Amino acid sequence: MNITMAHGSGGDATSKLIEEVFKTEFHNEYLDKMEDSSVVPGSSRLSMTTDSFVVQPLFYNGGDIGRLAVCGTVNDILMSGAVPKYLTAACVLEEGLDVEVLKRIVRSMSETAKEAGVSIVTGDTKVIEHRGNKESEPGIIINTAGVGFLDGDMNMGASYIKEGDVVIISGNIGDHHAAIMKERLGIENDRIMSDNAPLNEMVRGLLDNGVRVHAMRDVTRGGLGTVLNEFASASSNDIYIIEEKIPVSDSVRDFCSLLGLDLMYLGNEGKMVCFVDNEDEEKAVDIIRNAKYGENAVAIGYVKKAAAIPCLVLKTSIGGERVVGPLYGEGLPRIC
Amino acid sequence: MNITMAHGSGGDATSKLIEEVFKTEFHNEYLDKMEDSSVVPGSSRLSMTTDSFVVQPLFYNGGDIGRLAVCGTVNDILMSGAVPKYLTAACVLEEGLDVEVLKRIVRSMSETAKEAGVSIVTGDTKVIEHRGNKESEPGIIINTAGVGFLDGDMNMGASYIKEGDVVIISGNIGDHHAAIMKERLGIENDRIMSDNAPLNEMVRGLLDNGVRVHAMRDVTRGGLGTVLNEFASASSNDIYIIEEKIPVSDSVRDFCSLLGLDLMYLGNEGKMVCFVDNEDEEKAVDIIRNAKYGENAVAIGYVKKAAAIPCLVLKTSIGGERVVGPLYGEGLPRIC
Repeated sequence: MNITMAHGSGGDATSKLIEEVFKTEFHNEYLDKMEDSSVVPGSSRLSMTTDSFVVQPLFYNGGDIGRLAVCGTVNDILMSGAVPKYLTAACVLEEGLDVEVLKRIVRSMSETAKEAGVSIVTGDTKVIEHRGNKESEPGIIINTAGVGFLDGDMNMGASYIKEGDVVIISGNIGDHHAAIMKERLGIENDRIMSDNAPLNEMVRGLLDNGVRVHAMRDVTRGGLGTVLNEFASASSNDIYIIEEKIPVSDSVRDFCSLLGLDLMYLGNEGKMVCFVDNEDEEKAVDIIRNAKYGENAVAIGYVKKAAAIPCLVLKTSIGGERVVGPLYGEGLPRIC
Repeated sequence: MNITMAHGSGGDATSKLIEEVFKTEFHNEYLDKMEDSSVVPGSSRLSMTTDSFVVQPLFYNGGDIGRLAVCGTVNDILMSGAVPKYLTAACVLEEGLDVEVLKRIVRSMSETAKEAGVSIVTGDTKVIEHRGNKESEPGIIINTAGVGFLDGDMNMGASYIKEGDVVIISGNIGDHHAAIMKERLGIENDRIMSDNAPLNEMVRGLLDNGVRVHAMRDVTRGGLGTVLNEFASASSNDIYIIEEKIPVSDSVRDFCSLLGLDLMYLGNEGKMVCFVDNEDEEKAVDIIRNAKYGENAVAIGYVKKAAAIPCLVLKTSIGGERVVGPLYGEGLPRIC
């Protein structure tokens, strides 16, 4: 069966689609009431975020748009120091989309939500025309918004970063970027696989064990170069990172050399950087390494009070220093 | 200036767009921190909802996609009995979209959010290819998700509807549907105007003045026929409505006659139905009529225990009774 405009009418076809595809997979005590909104238990401090996902292709080595849509929002909530609790899921479907494709995506969302300990409590479905050329498959755009609960005394963010802080990355960079690019170019290489993953275990490990984390951010679109530039600028510090410490798998490194890609701007979907008090460096790296998806975590740099305009400085493997700007230009369109 | 793929890269161009277009309009203490998520004060019971908006055209008599995106989510929260507090806003832009068009839409979102008493606390921007034909304008898809606070003892929904309840509609039906259709057909008629509006005043008026409201729902896609069918089925009651009491403006009635449209399935974006205890009928109608956007409110029907399969019954103006099903088929694509 394929999606028709009627599935977006709000009438009988919409109800049936929601009942058969979404409710079956997502069902929980909140969603099952099938009202236009869901009533859920709250907390005195909330963290809220949203992301739309337009990745192409919909399926790639290591993941799919459904897994990505859950991980992206869960990770944004985690990075504020909050515990992710509830997600909303809104799908914009292109006419002609195979319902079996939609079911695979929805199942993947459901499995990833279970892994990340969140409930998908409300949703929405719209249908738009398939406007690609005849050879292209009808697509889907997914928006997830998330709510997390935050402890009363938990505060972190760029303004808490201070001189001497250590910069830790949770693992190899570039995996998601390379996986999407490889699919688009039709290159066969099973070792290149997206890292899309929810980072609950490492984040809660750090926070529940008293590591003094001053800021965290998942390293997505724009890559390490852009994220660290944002932190430098927002915290008025220089950030130094040591090129040879930045972890990259051999296959992604080779892939980037071949295509002339700069590692500093590769998108990831299961990696974070965190700024921790330098006394806690070893403890923090240990905790992340022992957590799921963190086995290649390593300290890659440190923070110094800005001498002039705050910037990101790369200490290169040949002993030089190079200022690295944020990403300029297109990057890789529709990477997430 | 026009939107390019670079505006979706997550790099320098994305930051500038967010700074210049979104932050300027939406700015508030939460959003201004410009993190990937926002930390906001919470409450012990939350109401959550989400909607994506794909309406075409982007601007129409009486409103635009920005106003619609705020009203739709605000109204869904209101219908649960909660006070709407925070919205997320995620825009998927088509390459080539004029930034001035985007600014108008964002300003409209900002004004409507102020009217509805909500803060837009976090957002996201993605860019996709413009895939329409060369004559078509590049579009935008907006998702809003919302969080509201709910009193501890506030409970409403289909399961609270009981025999004898009165069905009240807050005003004329079909205005949004006719306004969108008129634009698409290029018909000149200034009296046909979308009703897109936030319904805070009438809803809070009812609840704060102790009207025993058992269920509320905004009457959007699928129209009155579909909404009342959902309530009949979910509450296991028959719902009777009296055709000649259903309020419709003369211009929309004429428009529908001309095009052969069934009033029961017309979409609205600023109308609600509510089920109230029959002792409170007069008080409820009075409160809604005195609230903004409620001047044509009227009781249109009542609830009876279902004799067999629960259904919606229309008492026609010629004295007959007709069972009305939910909307089957396409309705009007991209009405919201």
